[in-house]
Amino acid sequence: MPYRPFEGQHCSIARTLAIVGERWTLLVLREVLLGRRHYAEIRRETGVATNILADRLETMVQHGILEVDADGAYRATPKGLDLQPVLIALMEWGDAHAGEPPPRVLVHTRCGHDTRPEYRCSHCGEPVPPQELRARPGPGATEQMRAAGVLPAG
Amino acid sequence: MPYRPFEGQHCSIARTLAIVGERWTLLVLREVLLGRRHYAEIRRETGVATNILADRLETMVQHGILEVDADGAYRATPKGLDLQPVLIALMEWGDAHAGEPPPRVLVHTRCGHDTRPEYRCSHCGEPVPPQELRARPGPGATEQMRAAGVLPAG
Repeated sequence: MPYRPFEGQHCSIARTLAIVGERWTLLVLREVLLGRRHYAEIRRETGVATNILADRLETMVQHGILEVDADGAYRATPKGLDLQPVLIALMEWGDAHAGEPPPRVLVHTRCGHDTRPEYRCSHCGEPVPPQELRARPGPGATEQMRAAGVLPAG
Repeated sequence: MPYRPFEGQHCSIARTLAIVGERWTLLVLREVLLGRRHYAEIRRETGVATNILADRLETMVQHGILEVDADGAYRATPKGLDLQPVLIALMEWGDAHAGEPPPRVLVHTRCGHDTRPEYRCSHCGEPVPPQELRARPGPGATEQMRAAGVLPAG
């Protein structure tokens, strides 16, 4: 079942959610990134219904997020790995606000330490607290968005 | 309509999605962060159905993500602002992979430049490509998760 696009949204957030915002999709991707590459394994780890699992895997393959080899093992493509920040952001919010101790902790293998990745500005390298971000109309902005000009982003 | 929790998931990603993973929730939050603070304004900008908008706003208020003042203006709480990285991550993936020019570009007001925030390790400050992340069992891990040990995370 394809996720119905958000009609009239000119927004990269909406475009991403139209592909991966369906219930379970990101949790299935999480399993693949955790190294569970086979249908039965993902099914066992998540308890997701078989028809839903099959649909979500197929959707991600169709969109080039996952690829499947001759043995039926799923692997994230570079496009799929680019979704890891979405999972990190969701995980960190849950760690901070879900009121339960973190089930998993990320480790940065290069430095060997536990890590809670934080967003830094691609230009100056400093943290980007919400209050320091604005959204300006980009090359894909509509006339209405251009007229609205620069908006706060936090 | 509350989002049905993911039964049996011991996962901060799932816990976050159980609160904000419902269709439209994050797009409504996006509007509030863009400075659209009133029901009618959010409705006009998004085209979301009135019953859905009312539900999503109420859900976010109940979870302390938004607060509403006496004039009916919504504002993100600190807990809500902590969701901004989720929106950033979704936006960046859409910018990179949705095949359309970016409708919005983020600006970092402190340095004054366009920015595409990138995740950096909280310990060493270096970027954290997916291949350099692992997931170890945390304090809230189940026995099964402890037995599985350290897993890849990309």
